[in-house]
Amino acid sequence: MMSIKILRERIRKIGHYEAMAALLDWDQNTYMPAKAAGDRALLMEEATRLSVELFLADQTGELIEAAEAGTLTPTEKNIVKIVKREYIKNRKIPSESHVRLKGETARAFEAWRAAKEENDFSRFAPALEKVLEICREQADSLGYQNEPYDAMLDLYEPGIKAAEVETIIRPLQECLTGLLGDLDNGGKPDVFTPAAAFPLQLQEELNHQLLKLMHFDLEGGQLSTAPHPFTITMSPGDVRITTRYNKHDPFSSLLGTAHEAGHGLYEQGIPEDLMLWSEISTPSLGIHESQSRFWENGIVRSLDFWKCFYPRLLEIFPVFKQCKVEDLWRSLNRVEPSLIRVEADEVTYNLHIMLRFEIERELLNGKVPVSRLPELWNEKMKSYLGIEPSTDSEGVLQDVHWSMGLFGYFPTYMLGNLYSAQFSHKMVKDIPDLSAAVAEGRLEVPLQWLRTNIHNHGNIYQPGELVKMVTGESLNINYFTDYIKSKYHEIYRL
Amino acid sequence: MMSIKILRERIRKIGHYEAMAALLDWDQNTYMPAKAAGDRALLMEEATRLSVELFLADQTGELIEAAEAGTLTPTEKNIVKIVKREYIKNRKIPSESHVRLKGETARAFEAWRAAKEENDFSRFAPALEKVLEICREQADSLGYQNEPYDAMLDLYEPGIKAAEVETIIRPLQECLTGLLGDLDNGGKPDVFTPAAAFPLQLQEELNHQLLKLMHFDLEGGQLSTAPHPFTITMSPGDVRITTRYNKHDPFSSLLGTAHEAGHGLYEQGIPEDLMLWSEISTPSLGIHESQSRFWENGIVRSLDFWKCFYPRLLEIFPVFKQCKVEDLWRSLNRVEPSLIRVEADEVTYNLHIMLRFEIERELLNGKVPVSRLPELWNEKMKSYLGIEPSTDSEGVLQDVHWSMGLFGYFPTYMLGNLYSAQFSHKMVKDIPDLSAAVAEGRLEVPLQWLRTNIHNHGNIYQPGELVKMVTGESLNINYFTDYIKSKYHEIYRL
Repeated sequence: MMSIKILRERIRKIGHYEAMAALLDWDQNTYMPAKAAGDRALLMEEATRLSVELFLADQTGELIEAAEAGTLTPTEKNIVKIVKREYIKNRKIPSESHVRLKGETARAFEAWRAAKEENDFSRFAPALEKVLEICREQADSLGYQNEPYDAMLDLYEPGIKAAEVETIIRPLQECLTGLLGDLDNGGKPDVFTPAAAFPLQLQEELNHQLLKLMHFDLEGGQLSTAPHPFTITMSPGDVRITTRYNKHDPFSSLLGTAHEAGHGLYEQGIPEDLMLWSEISTPSLGIHESQSRFWENGIVRSLDFWKCFYPRLLEIFPVFKQCKVEDLWRSLNRVEPSLIRVEADEVTYNLHIMLRFEIERELLNGKVPVSRLPELWNEKMKSYLGIEPSTDSEGVLQDVHWSMGLFGYFPTYMLGNLYSAQFSHKMVKDIPDLSAAVAEGRLEVPLQWLRTNIHNHGNIYQPGELVKMVTGESLNINYFTDYIKSKYHEIYRL
Repeated sequence: MMSIKILRERIRKIGHYEAMAALLDWDQNTYMPAKAAGDRALLMEEATRLSVELFLADQTGELIEAAEAGTLTPTEKNIVKIVKREYIKNRKIPSESHVRLKGETARAFEAWRAAKEENDFSRFAPALEKVLEICREQADSLGYQNEPYDAMLDLYEPGIKAAEVETIIRPLQECLTGLLGDLDNGGKPDVFTPAAAFPLQLQEELNHQLLKLMHFDLEGGQLSTAPHPFTITMSPGDVRITTRYNKHDPFSSLLGTAHEAGHGLYEQGIPEDLMLWSEISTPSLGIHESQSRFWENGIVRSLDFWKCFYPRLLEIFPVFKQCKVEDLWRSLNRVEPSLIRVEADEVTYNLHIMLRFEIERELLNGKVPVSRLPELWNEKMKSYLGIEPSTDSEGVLQDVHWSMGLFGYFPTYMLGNLYSAQFSHKMVKDIPDLSAAVAEGRLEVPLQWLRTNIHNHGNIYQPGELVKMVTGESLNINYFTDYIKSKYHEIYRL
């Protein structure tokens, strides 16, 4: 058999092991009973071992070389290019370390969950230490020029360095802090909070209305509930998203669903040939986040969207009749420094990221000990957002990421916002009637643009290349700062 | 390291692969989106391959022998005994055949689902042919004296033969048909059907009340919804049960939950050392079914139970205030020949089994072709129950079993009813105040008896041995016929 055929069969088998690991992961976050946690960590280790050992075997490298030497179709060339890039990078870390990290993080996740529930950071600290230790070892294995944190960052956003993130943060912080000052003098939107409760079943129905409008394929995907919403792909026909419900606020789950469905549409949009296994099938987490942010903020927090969605909302929750469309839209865009990142508005959101970036960079680089995290968190919350959490559950324990060993992950959320603004700017130029299309509920119009310009490329290009290819220039934060100033000046009637 | 240690580690690893297969299975029946079906079959094949290849390797046999030669604790002796018995039996079937069956049945399951939905038997027939072919091959590999079907039956109920089942069926059918005639002259219970709808969320709450009362451990288990309810164990701390909801009838899900929780309590009650992996940790499906039937019919369809559960029902569904406890109990025990097995009353239930046994026996033995199944089904329904389905969905397509290759499984449902009656008879003798305990909601009393007499033994004894050990005699259908006549004579005031 031709080497490329054997290589593709191998990829498929790795994909199956990855799918098993993904299902174990999804289940742990949705339906798994508590007492299964210990065994689950071992199962996840085992599934990861199967995948990693097959992927990182010498034979995979030999197959890649042999395939490169043969005659390849353009698609096959791209597949080999992607697999080779990921193989070289991941081989730097010993298989055993990949597996150990999976097991330790499954345990740390449980420790984090308990610590958050009981507001007791000390329950999480020892597990975090172990995870950190493995991550530092991995950074050393990967290699770096300036600091260990760069090696981690590169796992999630290939090509970017901590120092560069810093140069983005400075002007961005200045812009956002300035904007917050402007808004103080503007007309703050009222929050329309009807005393009514919003039964979960009806909220689910509303979320499904949104998914239909977004063309999220529910035959090839699914929506569940999870305490910390996420998206996970088992196979091209199995993309799962999650949201969480607040019975006093139907928009909390709706925005969460929009966000995760943005990720989900991306996964569903990768051409089947280029969907190798989910983790290596898109260029970076920042690019991924640009998709979720586009749908969450660019669409569902836009006035155009509410022109079409308002009647659907009224059908399910007639109580909103008392509220005009424009007021509803303004209230969904009310700016207020708050404690919880995932509930933050678009203006303060990036400030939440900045403080996490600074803390995790120091932490991974060994400049601060785990024990100082709660204190450091509260200090930085005060300096960036002017408020301080009263419990660690609302503070340093709010995010799942560090329990998962995801140091270097947070900055990709900020980059996602920046990419999204830059892509949107180009989309508006390409589609003059975009605004009308959204107002009429024709969301296939922006989706088609994303499919053609971004989804279709899978992981062929590095994030920097893709941004340049799509927009004609490198990452430029001005698109975001222009967007956010103009949107919020309008909302605050300045 | 000592051989027994190595063997136990191997068992643990097989258990992990079995747990992955179980999760894939559970997910396929609960939350998996439709388009994932193709890939899911491959994943299940892969998980099965991992488990079967490790279990059936020569090395396992060598480890068993070496362990037997060493010094063993009593528990270790039992573990070796169980594993050896299962190893010898399963080795007769080539690993490849186990794996192929898993893949074909995952595909056949999807074909069955579609066929049932569209009432089109021809959509299911080709997939069923393939499954049958593998099962016949497996019967040949396993070996048999009289007929291939015996080999299949032995997989689920070790030690029993089709001819024996036949000798049970004759007097049982006579008893049941006679009883049906008696009941015609009795006072038929009214069905209390309030026009009200019963929201699923409230039904779920009611089901959880029942689980609590039954001491089903929800920290080590979970209740989901599935179109065809089942119980599955991932690990000792992860026993999942399912039910299905009918918005016009809260008792449908409640009885389903009681049944599956009966299976679940058994799985949760196997001592951790003896819980190897679920499939080899109990003596037979008939013994398993005796547990589900005990809770469903012996408890939840008893007047004693409703004495304690009625107030809980009223709290959630006050509409039942109009109905006296005794009338409610009688209406739950109304006898009526009907089309669907899982909704059948206790009297007609075994008649449903008899016709399935006869059909699948002929089918597996190659005496009738797949194409004749719908016709044969309808004929036998008429002869056993006096009614005929108007669609195949309500007829030959109603059960999932044959799509899963489970020929020889149905008779274990009947055996379960018989075992349950025999165990119950002994339980009443051992616990004079059982009736009062149930009426007061002290369900830990019967549970403790089951734990001590049945659950604690895991799969140490063969079904025949266990029945004799617990009750002092071999399977005796008189316990069931006495029970059913006396119960229904009382209900029908004869």
